[in-house]
Amino acid sequence: MTKSTLIEKLNWRYATKKMDPSKPVPQEKVDQILEAIRMAPTSSGTQPFEVFVVTNPEIRAQIRKVAWDQAQITDGSHLLVFAAWDNYSEERIDAVTRQMIEERGEIPLLKQYYENLKATYLPREAEVNHGHAARQAYIALGFALAAAAELEVDSTPMEGFDPNAVDEILGLRERGLRSVVLLPLGHRQAEGDWLLPMKKVRKPRENFVTEIS
Amino acid sequence: MTKSTLIEKLNWRYATKKMDPSKPVPQEKVDQILEAIRMAPTSSGTQPFEVFVVTNPEIRAQIRKVAWDQAQITDGSHLLVFAAWDNYSEERIDAVTRQMIEERGEIPLLKQYYENLKATYLPREAEVNHGHAARQAYIALGFALAAAAELEVDSTPMEGFDPNAVDEILGLRERGLRSVVLLPLGHRQAEGDWLLPMKKVRKPRENFVTEIS
Repeated sequence: MTKSTLIEKLNWRYATKKMDPSKPVPQEKVDQILEAIRMAPTSSGTQPFEVFVVTNPEIRAQIRKVAWDQAQITDGSHLLVFAAWDNYSEERIDAVTRQMIEERGEIPLLKQYYENLKATYLPREAEVNHGHAARQAYIALGFALAAAAELEVDSTPMEGFDPNAVDEILGLRERGLRSVVLLPLGHRQAEGDWLLPMKKVRKPRENFVTEIS
Repeated sequence: MTKSTLIEKLNWRYATKKMDPSKPVPQEKVDQILEAIRMAPTSSGTQPFEVFVVTNPEIRAQIRKVAWDQAQITDGSHLLVFAAWDNYSEERIDAVTRQMIEERGEIPLLKQYYENLKATYLPREAEVNHGHAARQAYIALGFALAAAAELEVDSTPMEGFDPNAVDEILGLRERGLRSVVLLPLGHRQAEGDWLLPMKKVRKPRENFVTEIS
């Protein structure tokens, strides 16, 4: 039987509450986590989000203030901010189409595919499109969590922050972006973490998975 | 240097267009993919979605009809349907709280935490809450894609389907669920797949990652 080693690592990971400020994550591991994020598939290949890697202590301190004072933001060594497109636009989809053609050559139907995509996306409300873009960022968040766990880097996904304030701090709105989720990276400080000794709680498979055979 | 083997697998994977109906995915691999999904972290630990594993050929044929006739749905051996909660409710959050207390014991503040969560979630529109639940399902989709790649199982994430029709086919609405993404599992049929020989296209890191140091 082929046994997943990833699942062991997914059991090792947890939403680290206390990170050790004296143990920064080596840059080579951060780079691999970023590469996993970059490889994440997205709807129609648009990659409709960007990632900010904040190491600057003052900026992380500012973000912590608008994120319920969660200490991992400054106790960790790197803060990843996933920022999704505020909307789809003709320019953004055309840029995706151009890159596809440059790298794969002219494929019949490719241009038509993206014209159809624009016809679907552009009339929709910005909020609907941003919500769709945010979902794609969450696939990549999943990849980031998996890659971090594989490399034994601790991480804590966080939705508990004021997105408008983070957008302001990082100047995201001017770039057509909105922050959707934070991911501090660091190493657990076992003795100070109330969550580490706790059992990982998940619904039993039978309440979560239905087989239709 | 600690080298990620996951990244190699993420390069191996692609949105498989042609699956080989003669090569079903062994159940032990499907079980591990489902376990990765179950281990995915979710906001406040609510796991606000369920997964349907459809192997029944007639039901997959019905779903294919409302999913742009995408052949992987029936050429693969297993179709995963991620279905997010249509809304948060007192009952659902209370069930999460009960399970937490059963497995971890009475923790001061735990009940208060989930009371606060209800105070935030319950007054919100169903659409907002469903959107939030859907994002959590997408983290798990990321885990499913990573676990499948690790096990060399092919998979194709699909948003191109009529969610109302899939909800109808699977009876999801009565269960307070709405389908958000499909993931057929199978094995690639290399000779019949136009996408396989194509270069994987991703934005260069410099257009995608901003470092703030």
